[in-house]
Parts: sequence; C-alpha cells; structure tokens
Amino acid sequence: MKVIDKIHRAKEEGRPFWSFEYFPPKTTAGVMNLLDRMERMYNLGPEFVDITWNAGGSSSDLTSELIATAQSVYGLETCMHLTCTNMPKQKIDIALKAAKACGNQNILALRGDPPRGEERWESCENGFAYASDLVAYIREQYGDYFSIGVAGYPEGHLDSTDKEEDFKWLKFKVDQGADFIVTQLFYDTELFKDWVQECRKRGIHVPILPGIMPIQSYGGFVRMTSICRTSVPESILEALEPIKDDDQAVKDYGVKLAVQMCREIQEAGTQGFHFYTLNLEKSTRLILEGLEFVVPRENIRSLPWNPSLSKKREKENVRPIFWKNRIKSYVARTEAWDEFPNGRWGDSRSPAFGELDGYGTSLKLSSKDALAIWGHPESAEDVSSLFAKYCQGLVKSIPWSDERSLYPETEAIRGQLVNLNERGYLTINSQPAVNGVRSDDKVHGWGPKNGYVYQKAYLEFFISPENLNQLVKRIEEEPQITYYAVNKRGDLRTNSHTDGPNAVTWGVFVGKEIVQPTIVEVVSFMAWKDEAFELWSEWSKIYDHESTSAKVINSIRDEWYLINIVHNDFQDQDGLFRVLDSVPTTNGVPPSTASR
Amino acid sequence: MKVIDKIHRAKEEGRPFWSFEYFPPKTTAGVMNLLDRMERMYNLGPEFVDITWNAGGSSSDLTSELIATAQSVYGLETCMHLTCTNMPKQKIDIALKAAKACGNQNILALRGDPPRGEERWESCENGFAYASDLVAYIREQYGDYFSIGVAGYPEGHLDSTDKEEDFKWLKFKVDQGADFIVTQLFYDTELFKDWVQECRKRGIHVPILPGIMPIQSYGGFVRMTSICRTSVPESILEALEPIKDDDQAVKDYGVKLAVQMCREIQEAGTQGFHFYTLNLEKSTRLILEGLEFVVPRENIRSLPWNPSLSKKREKENVRPIFWKNRIKSYVARTEAWDEFPNGRWGDSRSPAFGELDGYGTSLKLSSKDALAIWGHPESAEDVSSLFAKYCQGLVKSIPWSDERSLYPETEAIRGQLVNLNERGYLTINSQPAVNGVRSDDKVHGWGPKNGYVYQKAYLEFFISPENLNQLVKRIEEEPQITYYAVNKRGDLRTNSHTDGPNAVTWGVFVGKEIVQPTIVEVVSFMAWKDEAFELWSEWSKIYDHESTSAKVINSIRDEWYLINIVHNDFQDQDGLFRVLDSVPTTNGVPPSTASR
Repeated sequence: MKVIDKIHRAKEEGRPFWSFEYFPPKTTAGVMNLLDRMERMYNLGPEFVDITWNAGGSSSDLTSELIATAQSVYGLETCMHLTCTNMPKQKIDIALKAAKACGNQNILALRGDPPRGEERWESCENGFAYASDLVAYIREQYGDYFSIGVAGYPEGHLDSTDKEEDFKWLKFKVDQGADFIVTQLFYDTELFKDWVQECRKRGIHVPILPGIMPIQSYGGFVRMTSICRTSVPESILEALEPIKDDDQAVKDYGVKLAVQMCREIQEAGTQGFHFYTLNLEKSTRLILEGLEFVVPRENIRSLPWNPSLSKKREKENVRPIFWKNRIKSYVARTEAWDEFPNGRWGDSRSPAFGELDGYGTSLKLSSKDALAIWGHPESAEDVSSLFAKYCQGLVKSIPWSDERSLYPETEAIRGQLVNLNERGYLTINSQPAVNGVRSDDKVHGWGPKNGYVYQKAYLEFFISPENLNQLVKRIEEEPQITYYAVNKRGDLRTNSHTDGPNAVTWGVFVGKEIVQPTIVEVVSFMAWKDEAFELWSEWSKIYDHESTSAKVINSIRDEWYLINIVHNDFQDQDGLFRVLDSVPTTNGVPPSTASR
Repeated sequence: MKVIDKIHRAKEEGRPFWSFEYFPPKTTAGVMNLLDRMERMYNLGPEFVDITWNAGGSSSDLTSELIATAQSVYGLETCMHLTCTNMPKQKIDIALKAAKACGNQNILALRGDPPRGEERWESCENGFAYASDLVAYIREQYGDYFSIGVAGYPEGHLDSTDKEEDFKWLKFKVDQGADFIVTQLFYDTELFKDWVQECRKRGIHVPILPGIMPIQSYGGFVRMTSICRTSVPESILEALEPIKDDDQAVKDYGVKLAVQMCREIQEAGTQGFHFYTLNLEKSTRLILEGLEFVVPRENIRSLPWNPSLSKKREKENVRPIFWKNRIKSYVARTEAWDEFPNGRWGDSRSPAFGELDGYGTSLKLSSKDALAIWGHPESAEDVSSLFAKYCQGLVKSIPWSDERSLYPETEAIRGQLVNLNERGYLTINSQPAVNGVRSDDKVHGWGPKNGYVYQKAYLEFFISPENLNQLVKRIEEEPQITYYAVNKRGDLRTNSHTDGPNAVTWGVFVGKEIVQPTIVEVVSFMAWKDEAFELWSEWSKIYDHESTSAKVINSIRDEWYLINIVHNDFQDQDGLFRVLDSVPTTNGVPPSTASR
C-alpha cells in the first residue's frame, strides 16, 4: 500500500501516526538482529518503515534485500530510500524493479551524500544530479505505482546558502511528482513550525513528516548535530551538560525531550512523526508510550502471523504451523508457488515446497557464538537440559528458532514446557489452547474487533523411539488427540484417518466466514521434517565429527522422531499436558519429581 | 450408497439396524404429509427407506418422484420397488434411469400383484414374467451399480403350492444377482426362524430382513392376514379378542407384539428389521424405543441440514440459511448448478438461482384448507396475530414454512418470537445463538462426535417501512449486528461492508478444518426474496381480489420489507432479542406490555 494513502487514511480517522527509519547493518549478525528488532517493533504499529540506501557497494543490494524481507516476510509496509550518488540509471532501474517485485510501493528519493572521502557531491556518469530528476524519472517509468517521498530541510540544505532557493527546490520536487516530505532531524521545534508555515505559503501542500532523532548518547548527539549543522536550543545543552557522562541519564533525557518536541509539533497541527531509530528499539518505544499513542487495532495483527505484503501473496490466508519459528524459511520455500492458498489449503497441496536452499538451514550464528551458547553436550540428557534452559530463558536460542525469545502466549505454558524438556521431549513449537477470547486480547488476539479467537493446543518435539512407543500407547486412548510422528528416513506414524488439514487457529468475526489461518497438515509436515532434521546436522557441524557432542547430536538426528500433537478439545485448557504428564519417559527426570 | 454395503457395515459394527417401507399416497396433501413424516422419521435412523411401486398409472411416476425427493432433498437412502406388472421393458428402463439420476442405488425387484380386477397374474407385452428376469435384466443393464433386493415368502408364495419350488425360485433370484432378501409380513416367529435355516441349508446366503408389520387396527390386521393367508398364532388372536373394539389398545398391543417378535428373531441371530410403516410414524417409533435400539451417531445429522444423497451434490457442504423451511424449493432452484459449493460459497456465486418454477411457490394446500387455517385477516394486526399463533403452535402452518411445526431448537426462543410477531415483526425464519455445545447435543448437535457446534443468532421477518426505520436506527448503534433488508422492488438496505458470506453455523471437530455449513449472503438473499414475496401473492389468491383480506396481504407484499438480522456475538445468548425488544413498533402491542 502507498504511504500517501496510509497518511490520508490516518488523517481521515483523526489519529496520530508514526514511521521508523532503519539503516542496513554491516555484519550478517547485525542483519539478523535488525530483522528481529523490526519484527518486534511491528507491534509498535508504525504506519511504514524506511530503509536507508548506502551509496554504492554491496549495501545497496542489502537495502533491497531488507526491503523484500520486511515487506514479504514480516508484512511491514516499507519505503525504500534511493539516492543518486554513484547510481547510473541502470542501477536505479534494477533497484526500482526489485522494489516493485516484492510489493513495495514507496520510495524516498534523495540526492544523497557525497561518496565517502569526497568533499563535494557530483553526479556519476549516466546518473541524476538532483533528487527532482530522480522523482521525475520514477514517475515517468512507473506512473502512479509508487508513492514518492522527498527530503525537507527546515534548517536549509547543507550545500545551500539561500533559504528561498531551498523552498523553490522543494516545491520543484513536489511538482515533479513527490507526494510527501520527510524532514532532516532538528531539535528546535519553533524553527520547524515556522518552516512548515513557509512551505504552505509557497504552495507546498503535501504532508510533511518531521524527522525525530531521540538522543541516544551525548557523543553521538554532538557529532550528528555538528555534521548536520543542526541548531540546538540552549535549554537542551544546559540539560545535557550535568548528565553527559551518564549514558542512561542521557537516553532518558532523550526520550523526555522527544516526547516534549512531538507534543509541541502536534499542538501546531502535525499528526505524523518519522523516527530515526538508529536501529534501536527502546527509545522509540518509550517515546510512543510517553505520547500515549495508541496503536490502531488494524495495525497490530490481522492474522496470528504477520501477513506478507508481497503482491503475489496478498490472498494468502493460511499457513502450516510448523514454520512458526522459522518464518523466513517458510516464505523462501514457498516463493515459487503460483497461487497462495485462498481459503482452503487443499487447492495448493500439489505445489512442492522448495528445496532447502535459499534461506537455507544454516544456524544464523557463527560457530564461535554457537559454541558459546550451546556448549558441548555429552548425552541426550545434556541436550534435554539445553532445551529446558531455552524455555526458561536461560539459553538465548536453539537451532529451530529464528526468534530470540518465546512468544508472549507461551508464557502461560512455560513451566509445563520446561518440565517436558527435562523429561526428554525436545520441544520446538507450541501453542496453548484458547477458547474464544476477544479478538483484541493483548496476548492471543488478532483480526478485526468484536470477534473471538480460538486455538487448539499444539506441541511439536523430538522424541526417542522408546518414548514414542510409550506416548503413542497412551494417545491411542484419547479420542481428542491427533498426532503425526516421523523420523529422518520418513517412517510416518499417525492416528489420523483423514489427510485433510486440521485447523488449529481460527477466528469468528462480525459478518464473515470463519477465518482459519493456521493448520496442521501432513504434506507440509513432511516438507518441514527435512528442514527440522537437517538443523541437527548443522548443529553437529560446529563440533569435531569424532567428538562425543557430534555423535550425540547425530544419533538423535538419525534415530529420534519428530512428533506433532494436537489436542482437539480446545475447551479443555489443560488436556494436552495432563496426558503428556501421565506418560513415563525413559530419559530425564521421572514425571513425579519433575519441576513445575 | 448401496443397501448391501450398509448392511455389511452394520454387521461389522455389530449393531442392529432397521429400514422403513412407505407407499405413494393418493392425494397431493397425502404426499406432502408423507414427505413431512419421512423427514421426521429420518431421526429414527433407518438404514434405508423403501417406496413401493404401484402397478401402472401415474403412481409409478409418483414413486420415482418420492424416491428423488427422499434421496436428494431429505438425504434418506432409498430403495425403489419395481414390479413386472404392466411394465414393458421401456417403462422399466425409464424408472431405472430416473432412479440412477437421483443417486438411488437400490431396487427391490418384484413380480408384483395382478392388476386391479384381475384374478391371475400375467405378464404384459414386452414385459417380464418373473422377478428373477427383472433381476437379471437390471444386472445386465447396470452391472454392479444397483444393490438388488428380492422378496422372500416364509409362508410360501400365494401362487405356489410347493414349498420346495419356492426355495428354488428364491435361490434362482439370488443367483441372477439379488444381494438381499426382504420377507413378506408374518406373525409366527418360529416359522420365520425355521424358514431362514432352510434357506441357508439350500445355499441362500444373502442377508434376510424380516418384514415386520405392527398391528395398527383390528380390522386392518384381519383383512391383511386373510389376503396374504398369513398364519397367526393363537395367542395373538386371544390377546386381541377382548380389546378388538378399542383402537388405542390394539395399537398398543401391536407395538408390544412387534417388540417381542423382534427380540425373538434377534436372539436367533438376525440384526436387521424391515418395518411396514403403513405411512404411520408412531408405532414404528415406539417399537424402536421398546427395543432400545440406539440410532448410530452418523445416522443422525452429519450437518445441520440433511445432506442430499444425490450424486452431483455429494460435495455440497454449505447452504444459505434462507430456505431452511423450504428445503425442496432450494434443491429445485439449484438443480441446474454444475458444481456445488466445495468448502466456500464464493466459488459458486455466479451460477444463477433457478426461476420460481419447478417446485414452485404454490401454497401446498388447497384453497379450502388454506382458508380454514388462515381465515380472513382484515388488517396487518390480524396477520401479525396469525403469525404469533403459528409460533405458539395454535396455527398449523404459514405459507413460508414447508414444515408443519417449529424446529426443536426454536423451543427456547418461542416466547420471544411470539412477542415479536404480536408487535408486528412477521417472523419466518430463526435460529438461537449457540456457544460451543457438544456435537452430540440432542437439540443443536450435528457432525462427528467429540466436536463442538456454534450458531450466531439469526432472525428473518417482514417489517413495515416505518418499523424498519425505527429498527435500523437502533441497529446502527450495535457493532455486533449485521442486516440486509429488501422490499419487493429490490431496494436494498444493509450495514454490511463486505459482500462475502457470513457463517452463521459452524462446527469444530477432531483433526478437521472448521465446517461452515450455513451462511447468510446477499446474492442468495436476493434470490430468496423473490420467492418470499411471491408467497404473499399466492396467499392473496385464495381470497376474492376485491376483498379486504386480499388488499391487506397485497399491501404488505408491495410495501413491507423482508429483513434478515445476524447478531454476530454468539457468546451473548440474549443479545439479539435484547436489542429488538428495545425498539418501539407502530403496529401491534407496545414493547412494555408485550407478553413473554
């Protein structure tokens, strides 16, 4: 969706709105962390997010990649920065094409800074000299497809000495087709307010979003305001002076200041705010809380998973539960599908899942980091204990989880999961039973207001063959439980008599059919199990292949089963754990002494 | 499905089973009554129902029609009798073709009685002389498509004097392709048990269903046993003698006797029973209750409406709620569809509904009967009062209801419906809210066991334009209520923002997607409204067109609206009536004094 349409909608609804700006990190680990953070910050309800463009080099590809991931995987409306620096037309074309391909409809068109080491900005061969040329080119090539933003300079452009000239350029950029303006950072709100009035007087009527950069550290603040020649009101300098060596105090002040600035601007009639996050989460969150901005319901979760904003996935409304903790992998492995399940899973069962390339099954951690986290397990009991610690929050990640922490809804069953892991069931995915809570429930809610949401209790774990036999014996007595268990070789055990999907999450809404966005289904489970078992191999690779750790891990991979269990009686909150807790295991702590 | 497969399944499951035999009534009213009764008796769980074939004339077409209706509309597995009497091959072909077309897979092949007035049976030109020839012909023409039953005569065939000859003929019929036997009625169970043993000895191994005819009246019993030369044990005659003039006592004895006979036969190893119902319901029901036969779960309701057994409708799993009381009309008006909604309504929205012919919008009552029931309303208030009385059970029917009585689930809201009708809302369809009751619930349950079923409260009624304005004003305050209102001309009012379907009945089951068999949806509502308004015209036709009654009815037809209302908060049991009861009406009793 276009940023300009989202701005208009927010205005019509008479509510404030905000956007976040990120920059492409330099390391792979940094990229992983940023993606995690962006996904978390989704819940802060930004109307859109920006990714800056780094002049030339590989980071421009990274911008495109981040845009695609945010848009397609995390369902964040994105705006891609695009600069003229070192960008011949061909490169511009490639970037615009990639943006469009992933469903992105927003470009912030900039001239850009001079390349590193250069004093003055010069256009490259076959490139553009001005942001206005870039705007005109995008409009010429893509018509109305993109919403185009441009930069505004309340304190004047660095290269410009004539303020009136600045206004003329800004108006020219708008006349060439820009439909909104994001300003350079500033700390003097009076200056901003005056500047907006001057813009309006000169016929610049598009929305103007003030760029707010919360002060994160004293050094950074001084450096940034000096580079940008930002005027800083005396009162701010005075407030910072006594606390400048106390990082936390500076951050706290930065939040307080930004809240105050936003309030002043808001009183003058501006409702939209653009935050330069510096890829950090906390300050922005605290500012939004301080402003008492309420995330509009529809921005939170229209489905239990973030719907992709990729054009070809716009009708996608159901996913198997298996990739819940590896969303990027799911999106990658289904990328080749012509059509996404529209209402029913059945229609799209035939298309095969992609091979384990693309996103891949790598650990997303360096061997060194992995060893630091997972140590050297010497037995299946050690592995159990590691899984239990992950559930307790004492270990940062396991190979099956892209997420750095458990979902909020897992909190309620955390103790039970720890217990199961200690007893030798290595859990990698779960959801508690939910019996018709309101759709605006903070923990479980999703979808339009005035609805109710439901979940069947779900649990997926690795289990030794002996334990599987015990468990299956018990499950056969329970008509409400369905399961699929499979080992690496593909030997499948199940008590399910149909091969149709089992809806494990659904919602009932005003005037609609029942929405069924998450399912358990055998074809996709078989595709998932390859990935799930492959991750044991990846893990074992960080050890010498003759080591005990490698042998333990490989023997789990080769001999154990992966099982998924649904307790179909969602009205019986504790049913699943009651059954599991009653089964003795041959590994780990016996049920009677298990911790709760 | 084939009767023989159903018999085998019941045997595998080690449970008793039963079937009912009906005959084609002579009058249209009789046919309507029989269809009602057959639909009600569906709940007694017959494995199949027979319709007898009346030799020649129009009643044979009626047999085909009844078979089609039972199979396609009411979802009863049917077995069509087919006789050789006055049936040249061409007629046999037509009957078999019609049976197959409606999904019927079962034929009871008989020679038949001599035509009325003839003493001896003779074959007609180009017809068959023996049931065995008919069996052979059906097998030759249709291979294994049909399950074929034949008649067995425990007391010997009327035309036969040699018992051994009888066994030979029976074995020959089986050898020609019959796969089950239904016996002539009898009252001597010893005789039956011996005969079954003799059959087995002679190599007749197909299932044998004893024909049980409960005694309904003394006169009828004597006449029937004399015509069929049935031996009647002395003990029965002795028991009947003192009560023969007391009809009710005879009926009660008939039930007791049949229960005792079935028990004796069952002890000897027979598990299936064929009841000659004489188109009556009560005795058969009491016998099944007396035998403590439990209807197998799957026989009751796999969906909230009876799924059609027509081949082309086998995947049909969703219907609009509007025709709930006019099922025959719905089936008729959608007969031309190539494909039935498979999972979603959306796919089949384009096919138009059939015109108001076929089943038609006639009143299913003679003018005389209609006048007797509905009298001569002189005002809208009189009409209101008539509708209210229908809800109270004081008036037998209204033109919008094929059913002779309210659904059991309506009992809980009966008082509220009476109240609304007295206040001038003319209700024609409703369902109460249901918040997750077990799928085996006696009143609301449907679908496989261990599930839960849900309903949104639904109400459909005619309303005057003034009352509609009042009501809509109130509804606009309720975000949980959606409605569509339309008058005869097609002016539509709604607060719904989507045109997709609203699921108003759904079920959650073990290992399945959510099943959503009943919806409210605007395209089908517009098709329904033509029919709903046309029924006012049909009603007015029973009066002189200059009469006050005709004028009152026609003015309701021409000026009032038909409105359907869904209260989407199914967890708020009373929500719909709470809102409706708070709206004043300009017709009928004011809300404050309305009866409850």
